[in-house]
Amino acid sequence: MLPTLRLKAKAERRLKGGHLWVYSNEVDIAITPLKNMTAGSEVVVEAANGKALGVAVVSPEQLICARLFSRDSKQTLDVSLMVHRLQVAQSGRELWYPQSCYRWVFGDSDGLPGLVIDRFGDVVVIQISSVAMELRRQAIIDAVNKVAKPQCIVLKNDGKLRAVEGLPEYVEVIQGALEDDCAPLVENDTRFMAPVIHGQKTGWFYDHRENRAQLNRLVKGKRVLDVFSYVGGWGVQAANHGAAEVHCVDASAQALDWVEQNASLNGVAEKVHCWEGDAFAALRQLKDNGERFDVVVMDPPALIPRRKDIKAGEQAYHRLNQLAMRLLSKDGLLVAASCSMHLAEDRLPDMLRVMGRELDREVMIQHVGSQGADHPVLPAIAETRYLKAVFARVLPTR
Amino acid sequence: MLPTLRLKAKAERRLKGGHLWVYSNEVDIAITPLKNMTAGSEVVVEAANGKALGVAVVSPEQLICARLFSRDSKQTLDVSLMVHRLQVAQSGRELWYPQSCYRWVFGDSDGLPGLVIDRFGDVVVIQISSVAMELRRQAIIDAVNKVAKPQCIVLKNDGKLRAVEGLPEYVEVIQGALEDDCAPLVENDTRFMAPVIHGQKTGWFYDHRENRAQLNRLVKGKRVLDVFSYVGGWGVQAANHGAAEVHCVDASAQALDWVEQNASLNGVAEKVHCWEGDAFAALRQLKDNGERFDVVVMDPPALIPRRKDIKAGEQAYHRLNQLAMRLLSKDGLLVAASCSMHLAEDRLPDMLRVMGRELDREVMIQHVGSQGADHPVLPAIAETRYLKAVFARVLPTR
Repeated sequence: MLPTLRLKAKAERRLKGGHLWVYSNEVDIAITPLKNMTAGSEVVVEAANGKALGVAVVSPEQLICARLFSRDSKQTLDVSLMVHRLQVAQSGRELWYPQSCYRWVFGDSDGLPGLVIDRFGDVVVIQISSVAMELRRQAIIDAVNKVAKPQCIVLKNDGKLRAVEGLPEYVEVIQGALEDDCAPLVENDTRFMAPVIHGQKTGWFYDHRENRAQLNRLVKGKRVLDVFSYVGGWGVQAANHGAAEVHCVDASAQALDWVEQNASLNGVAEKVHCWEGDAFAALRQLKDNGERFDVVVMDPPALIPRRKDIKAGEQAYHRLNQLAMRLLSKDGLLVAASCSMHLAEDRLPDMLRVMGRELDREVMIQHVGSQGADHPVLPAIAETRYLKAVFARVLPTR
Repeated sequence: MLPTLRLKAKAERRLKGGHLWVYSNEVDIAITPLKNMTAGSEVVVEAANGKALGVAVVSPEQLICARLFSRDSKQTLDVSLMVHRLQVAQSGRELWYPQSCYRWVFGDSDGLPGLVIDRFGDVVVIQISSVAMELRRQAIIDAVNKVAKPQCIVLKNDGKLRAVEGLPEYVEVIQGALEDDCAPLVENDTRFMAPVIHGQKTGWFYDHRENRAQLNRLVKGKRVLDVFSYVGGWGVQAANHGAAEVHCVDASAQALDWVEQNASLNGVAEKVHCWEGDAFAALRQLKDNGERFDVVVMDPPALIPRRKDIKAGEQAYHRLNQLAMRLLSKDGLLVAASCSMHLAEDRLPDMLRVMGRELDREVMIQHVGSQGADHPVLPAIAETRYLKAVFARVLPTR
């Protein structure tokens, strides 16, 4: 019998509505003291009336002190359940992305809180961010091997959330081998090497795949600027889809080395140019040089990490996109993206409205994209929907 | 010199922010009495301080009494300006939809208030909904001929808005000829005949094109139900993309005749079945018959025509999608769509959350789509963004 976690009166409502998280102030600690619980252990979550709501893993010292992984209190988070969850997640992805390159597990959305897995065909990269999953590390690996039998498995356990949970950071190839510390992948018919050991996060950002696919339709013969390019997800793909010229801006020289490698991999190295430096400075310099682009992709890292950063972060998005808009040719396309969950859906379009008036341009939004189907959204958990990409045609004011 | 329309103090703010409409209670009628103005005439709109904001066409008896068509007060809405607007609109569409099948003009979004034009290659269908555009009917036709030289032009002037403006309803082929009163089109590689004379609106709903393209990726071997099918935009396309079986439900026998014709046109008539009747009744009957579908498309007409219909309309969306969800197989896809501008963006996902809990299903949103790029959104005018399509994978509760 698992121990229980008893909620205070009415605290069950959100869970009954589909949410999966328990906040520490919702626990009836007189009945079930959090301090007696072990991080990563399993509990049956009960409503104040004693009715079981499901089974969760606990992080007793965290604000989110428990995460449901099943509504069935008889379940346990073992290899068998993980195999099932991985299979369900896999079938959902393979339907959309039959080349086996996708985010295979997206945490809570796939019933596996604290776990992210990206798949690059025969290479699987695992990111663990909770004590619960760290304790079940071998079960995860066993389940991955049962379902996908990958040649290589990487543990990319260096995410920021780990320190919060008191976990050490480490990166380890625990099965097979990588070529040049990278994993090959195909996204929308363009080939890339993802730096799964030395790159950001899991090495690749699959989340923008559908948005890049939209851009690919529009770039033939165009001059494209890719700001915060990282390894060239947008820019190299645009070059591969007929862009006349692509300029990638990033602060990391290493990222730009990978851009060049990825461009070469697709035979478009001659069209792809790299610019190392701070985005703000680079955009101002390009403006001073009189440069103009048909397309500017503005895809910064999360500028609003916490709720209290909303104001400063929105100002940064505004400034960056305004600089981008000033670099557009007379009939240009601005792709304004944000991966900040705290940036509300309507903010980017409204910023574009304001800056269109400020710069005397007509802004017409042609497309609004979000994360791909391999980052499924749970409608009860707003945090699972975070990505935005607004495609705006920018013309002289009518 | 054009007459002026003087706004009250502070009423210029929304226009300065990018909006294009003047409400009658914002006019300083002491200085510029609306009752002296002729419907459809042009005015220079001035702020309370006398500063010109742009030039508009007036509907003096309407709540929205003027619509800006240019920020440049020296412009006039003549053939020359229309040619320019049509060219700009055309180049924006051709980039996305090079087969010349698209909504060519989307009213205010294209700087042509009161005008909608759909293009079916060599057939152009014009919908006029304001006195201003009715008065400029010949200029519109001349501009269309200058830019596109279509073989056939249809005036489909039977929209509901016409009565409000005191305009008669009529449908007329004013140039060239149609085969069987229909226009051929290609959408996402599937061929259709759009009933441009006897069908709804312009005969075809291009707005869901991108959403149908997404569905096309997912239907191979699936059993698909298309509710409110109209002429088969979703269903026939799904059949053409490998669906094993498609069932179209519509209340109109005529629409279902067109479904059959469109299915035949693509050689998939054997896979497409039609069910004439009320959607609610049909869905209940299918449930009683024990039918199950891998995919259900729920794309009703606008169920929230006015703001005051929000509550009743949301209930209708909920009931329809709940019936749809009950018809899904164990691992099914529900495409929940809405063309109601008054349905807020977050409502469909939240309804799916609620009904998932009610029916004991896990709902994972894989994709959220909107209108295609040929229905561009002006960020200042919320009314220009109206279409939603939520792709939800529905599984047993975890």
